[in-house]
Amino acid sequence: MSDNTFGRLIRLTTFGESHGEALGGVVDGFPSGVAIDMDFIRFRMARRRPGSTSLGTKRSESDDVEILSGVYNGMTTGAPIGFIIRNTSQHSSDYDDIADKFRPGHADYTYQMKYGIRDPRGGGRSSGRETSCRVFGGALCELLLRKEGISVGAGVVAVGKAKASGYEWNPPFPPPLYAPSCIEYGAMEDEIRRAQSESDSVGGIVECRVTGMVAGLGEPAAGKLDADLAGAIMSIGAVKGIEFGSGFEAASRRGSENNDQMRMEEGRPVFLSNNAGGILGGISNGNDIIMRIAVKPTPSIAIEQKTVNAAMENTEIIVRGRHDPCIAIRAVPVVEAMTALVLADHLCIARAYAG
Amino acid sequence: MSDNTFGRLIRLTTFGESHGEALGGVVDGFPSGVAIDMDFIRFRMARRRPGSTSLGTKRSESDDVEILSGVYNGMTTGAPIGFIIRNTSQHSSDYDDIADKFRPGHADYTYQMKYGIRDPRGGGRSSGRETSCRVFGGALCELLLRKEGISVGAGVVAVGKAKASGYEWNPPFPPPLYAPSCIEYGAMEDEIRRAQSESDSVGGIVECRVTGMVAGLGEPAAGKLDADLAGAIMSIGAVKGIEFGSGFEAASRRGSENNDQMRMEEGRPVFLSNNAGGILGGISNGNDIIMRIAVKPTPSIAIEQKTVNAAMENTEIIVRGRHDPCIAIRAVPVVEAMTALVLADHLCIARAYAG
Amino acid sequence: MSDNTFGRLIRLTTFGESHGEALGGVVDGFPSGVAIDMDFIRFRMARRRPGSTSLGTKRSESDDVEILSGVYNGMTTGAPIGFIIRNTSQHSSDYDDIADKFRPGHADYTYQMKYGIRDPRGGGRSSGRETSCRVFGGALCELLLRKEGISVGAGVVAVGKAKASGYEWNPPFPPPLYAPSCIEYGAMEDEIRRAQSESDSVGGIVECRVTGMVAGLGEPAAGKLDADLAGAIMSIGAVKGIEFGSGFEAASRRGSENNDQMRMEEGRPVFLSNNAGGILGGISNGNDIIMRIAVKPTPSIAIEQKTVNAAMENTEIIVRGRHDPCIAIRAVPVVEAMTALVLADHLCIARAYAG
Amino acid sequence: MSDNTFGRLIRLTTFGESHGEALGGVVDGFPSGVAIDMDFIRFRMARRRPGSTSLGTKRSESDDVEILSGVYNGMTTGAPIGFIIRNTSQHSSDYDDIADKFRPGHADYTYQMKYGIRDPRGGGRSSGRETSCRVFGGALCELLLRKEGISVGAGVVAVGKAKASGYEWNPPFPPPLYAPSCIEYGAMEDEIRRAQSESDSVGGIVECRVTGMVAGLGEPAAGKLDADLAGAIMSIGAVKGIEFGSGFEAASRRGSENNDQMRMEEGRPVFLSNNAGGILGGISNGNDIIMRIAVKPTPSIAIEQKTVNAAMENTEIIVRGRHDPCIAIRAVPVVEAMTALVLADHLCIARAYAG
Repeated sequence: MSDNTFGRLIRLTTFGESHGEALGGVVDGFPSGVAIDMDFIRFRMARRRPGSTSLGTKRSESDDVEILSGVYNGMTTGAPIGFIIRNTSQHSSDYDDIADKFRPGHADYTYQMKYGIRDPRGGGRSSGRETSCRVFGGALCELLLRKEGISVGAGVVAVGKAKASGYEWNPPFPPPLYAPSCIEYGAMEDEIRRAQSESDSVGGIVECRVTGMVAGLGEPAAGKLDADLAGAIMSIGAVKGIEFGSGFEAASRRGSENNDQMRMEEGRPVFLSNNAGGILGGISNGNDIIMRIAVKPTPSIAIEQKTVNAAMENTEIIVRGRHDPCIAIRAVPVVEAMTALVLADHLCIARAYAG
Repeated sequence: MSDNTFGRLIRLTTFGESHGEALGGVVDGFPSGVAIDMDFIRFRMARRRPGSTSLGTKRSESDDVEILSGVYNGMTTGAPIGFIIRNTSQHSSDYDDIADKFRPGHADYTYQMKYGIRDPRGGGRSSGRETSCRVFGGALCELLLRKEGISVGAGVVAVGKAKASGYEWNPPFPPPLYAPSCIEYGAMEDEIRRAQSESDSVGGIVECRVTGMVAGLGEPAAGKLDADLAGAIMSIGAVKGIEFGSGFEAASRRGSENNDQMRMEEGRPVFLSNNAGGILGGISNGNDIIMRIAVKPTPSIAIEQKTVNAAMENTEIIVRGRHDPCIAIRAVPVVEAMTALVLADHLCIARAYAG
Repeated sequence: MSDNTFGRLIRLTTFGESHGEALGGVVDGFPSGVAIDMDFIRFRMARRRPGSTSLGTKRSESDDVEILSGVYNGMTTGAPIGFIIRNTSQHSSDYDDIADKFRPGHADYTYQMKYGIRDPRGGGRSSGRETSCRVFGGALCELLLRKEGISVGAGVVAVGKAKASGYEWNPPFPPPLYAPSCIEYGAMEDEIRRAQSESDSVGGIVECRVTGMVAGLGEPAAGKLDADLAGAIMSIGAVKGIEFGSGFEAASRRGSENNDQMRMEEGRPVFLSNNAGGILGGISNGNDIIMRIAVKPTPSIAIEQKTVNAAMENTEIIVRGRHDPCIAIRAVPVVEAMTALVLADHLCIARAYAG
Repeated sequence: MSDNTFGRLIRLTTFGESHGEALGGVVDGFPSGVAIDMDFIRFRMARRRPGSTSLGTKRSESDDVEILSGVYNGMTTGAPIGFIIRNTSQHSSDYDDIADKFRPGHADYTYQMKYGIRDPRGGGRSSGRETSCRVFGGALCELLLRKEGISVGAGVVAVGKAKASGYEWNPPFPPPLYAPSCIEYGAMEDEIRRAQSESDSVGGIVECRVTGMVAGLGEPAAGKLDADLAGAIMSIGAVKGIEFGSGFEAASRRGSENNDQMRMEEGRPVFLSNNAGGILGGISNGNDIIMRIAVKPTPSIAIEQKTVNAAMENTEIIVRGRHDPCIAIRAVPVVEAMTALVLADHLCIARAYAG
């Protein structure tokens, strides 16, 4: 496995399997002098934790993070921030009867093809539990962004056929859905409950917005801000698509509809619309960054499916256990985290060239 | 500008502005012993070139690439491959009357905010002409992929409201549309001609497929194959979204619909569907990789728009000149190139860990 | 602090301060299928540990390493190997009376200038204790190199005015000196004891050899093998110089003396001398790699020295505590580790381009 | 070949073989707003050029650099700076009679072992001509450093047995020796002339100093300033050793001799000596950086030597042609360039974390 590091100046490296001793990582390149607000970090991590919402898995993990370095008297020192999250709730026996079968929609088959060796307990590095490390790193980066007045928020805006409309944006959104208040809220809940009652799962769409943005983050060719965000967010398990601003809708539009025209207002230039989603030519334009992310339905379902086992024989599989019926909800804090990591990284890069 | 390099082991670094002396770059980390098929390279580059299709700009550029190093007797030596593409057709005067105005939908404003200095002739590093270097690098990588039986092809599958359906996949697709043969071909052409006749432009969707894939490329956490593809393709100008396999459609599905079940066929495991788009948990599963990419309408239109100038005054702009009415067509060879770059890079990474 | 990662494909990232909770790190990009010989790893780490030799500090640290991930049933899985080393023996009070004084020869002053914030207990990231993480990573890499028949060994060949001569090379060398058997062994010990009895310290030279080398590791321009080794070894505290083969002696020689001529022997080409130290034009030639490393005397001495304090006032300092009289001895296992890291990394890089 | 890039934020990528079409490269990550002093750049490049000193090769190359991008109206724009240097003086026939023999002391053998393919004309990527690209990149970086008051200078301080003493430091030093004025100047010249008259070559030592340094550049662990300098300078062909400050001499000293004590002078802290060579714990302390670099004698000599040919047969070789009798002279501008590259890179990194 050649790569477990995100970022360029601010870099998060993660390690750990869901059923090993511990997960953890290193946040390197993080500026000194940032106050560590542990309440905020715990809040962010609690939102990701299994069992945090009534519409999610009943599996409960503690996710207590232990910071081992890089912080002195509550402030970052500039030194690398090492951290670990011990594994405590390990129901490895849940996996016994499916240990040698490739779960449809999971990385089991590709992992086996790639490495030839596979820890069957919970997916190894492909486990969603790895994202706990990203949420920790992202929360640190949010603390840095807040000093600049930049806020990151995400929420569920569609579940199955139910799509939120006419919502206001005031994150963080509360459980159970982590969705903005809207007429369709109940319909989205229903989609999940119905899927769950049928031993099935359902997909969803997460929207993420960054407010208080500064103009000028990102590069025009290789380090485009939207390219880096897309890469970071596509690295979250179950994400199958991402769009910015008018996104796929732009493909059916005319230029005269889609361009964001400009006017001076109160002495500063403003855009009259935000079809660009806050990024033009790879560089932030100061508008809110707006992304929508497609999350597939949880692949683990208790419905019988055709599959193949490690001995390369036909078989059937029913994936029992405590799985989320709609993994999109659980993706919300991870999307926020990856977004914060990319933005903080670009903020540092921009500083290197300022003045 | 801190980053003009794509890739990790095989790396393409590009330089050059559309109205400077030349563009060019370096392909580094490229294996030795690959035969340089200049006809193929020229074919790929010709498809990107302005003036290559009757539905595109009438602007003509020569795009002759000069290879300066790394090739000896028609074979790569393993040394870095330096190349340049001289600029010849420079109608800088086209830009005179709009030099100090920020063109809506362009990087002009963000570029100015970021660098404080801006070469007004053609967009500097944000110019689409920079992609000629990517197409050259991508063509080299395709030569490498072909040795492994891997092929990359892309085509336009939607223009404005017209969407292709029921098409077969046999790229490379011919001009003028670079689209697969389908009932809606004429309707797609009409969308472009109508937009053009109204001094407007129109968006489109590009589909890209990789056939002959091997299983096992990509990493489970930070270097996911789909994450790297998304990052590389989002770095193409005018791209506003990307999805893999069932993509955004997956968000409205049940897990039982979206999972790709498996069966043994003729002694080897096969997937009974390809909703994953060929990538599971960040690692290729051997199926075709399938991506769809949303391309916004060309921002340069000859319709009057509101904007602001460098002196921060309200003004209007009409962007005349020889612009593509549907930039999605022109994105086709660039999507192929970026895809090839990512796959060749991952092929080399995988080799480092094989055996 | 922007960088705590060594290597390119195989990468060691370290974190931790000497007086914090724990040190640790991540070995990423490490191949799967390598058997973890914990006895060997503990042996390597024991040699670095304070208190391991009668000529070293009496300070004792346990240096028990806990592997948290990446190993399953005693074999590496290819996943990142996270590890921590808890801090147990923390005599922070030793530092109380010198907390605000810049110790001559230490990083105290530069650290303060750079970060503005400084954990006065033991040097923060500049502490020698950070090297325990490198020795762990290096030991893993040695396990990989051994599979290829490559061995790394280092030893002390000079202390103060006493220089070893006529020695045979059969590492690992035993305590107290970690030096090859030679006539001058006693004189070297005497240099240390005399310095110690006078509350002073003394410098030394470490030699490192790599045997069983393959030809072809390293690159001709930017990734020269000797350049990467020099960078890695110069990153060890107290190292002030490095030379390869005839090294500084080559500067006074003629070309006819210094060139290594060649002859066929038993069907294969051999060099008739090894003035190159095993590396020609940045690429290994199959001969033993031979390096000599200059290590300055331990800066912590109990002799009164002039210095300045954090309030920028003149003062005097006597650095008491349990310090090594000759830090060169302690550098031996770290030199071995950094050498192994670079070689294993280049081995993986070479594999990416083989065949 | 996997790596032809130097640096982390400011990155120089080079390409080209000595007997191909052209050499060139890209300087990426370079700040905008730096005035391009072409006279200075040409001066630096002229010093490296063969034929530039009466004690060097009579071979003459033009080394005219063509800047292709990244500069507008004489100022850097922040965009990548592409450049090429055409090859004009190619006496490929000089190499005809030695094309299949491995020249002792050259990279011929290792290059063949590594790549299996070798352009026999002039050494491929191992050619000293590649350093012309480094001198160009280094000169750009010097322009950046000068804005901060930092100057880089190097000179020859030993040739063969003749060692300069008691010299003042006022670079740039003039031809023919690029050495500081000293009593031993004539003796150093004599060493070269004598070697040359005997068809032999001779080694030398280059000293490099950086004046006007700021404190705080470099990192305490992986990105130590001296480690990066050592890596960069060891990547210059023929360099076999490097030392900082008291260097190898420190190995024979006591701590009480070698530590640099401190005192307040005129309100600011000063070091009473500079045995550290300006770098403490990997971080610059504001003193002059002082390095000494061992350069081996030119391996190309017209004396008969034993070697092996590509058919793996014993043979003899006489390397005729126009070679430098003392390559140390020619290393002077390259040492300056690599030093400037590393310092400018660290300056940008430090800016990312300032404030």
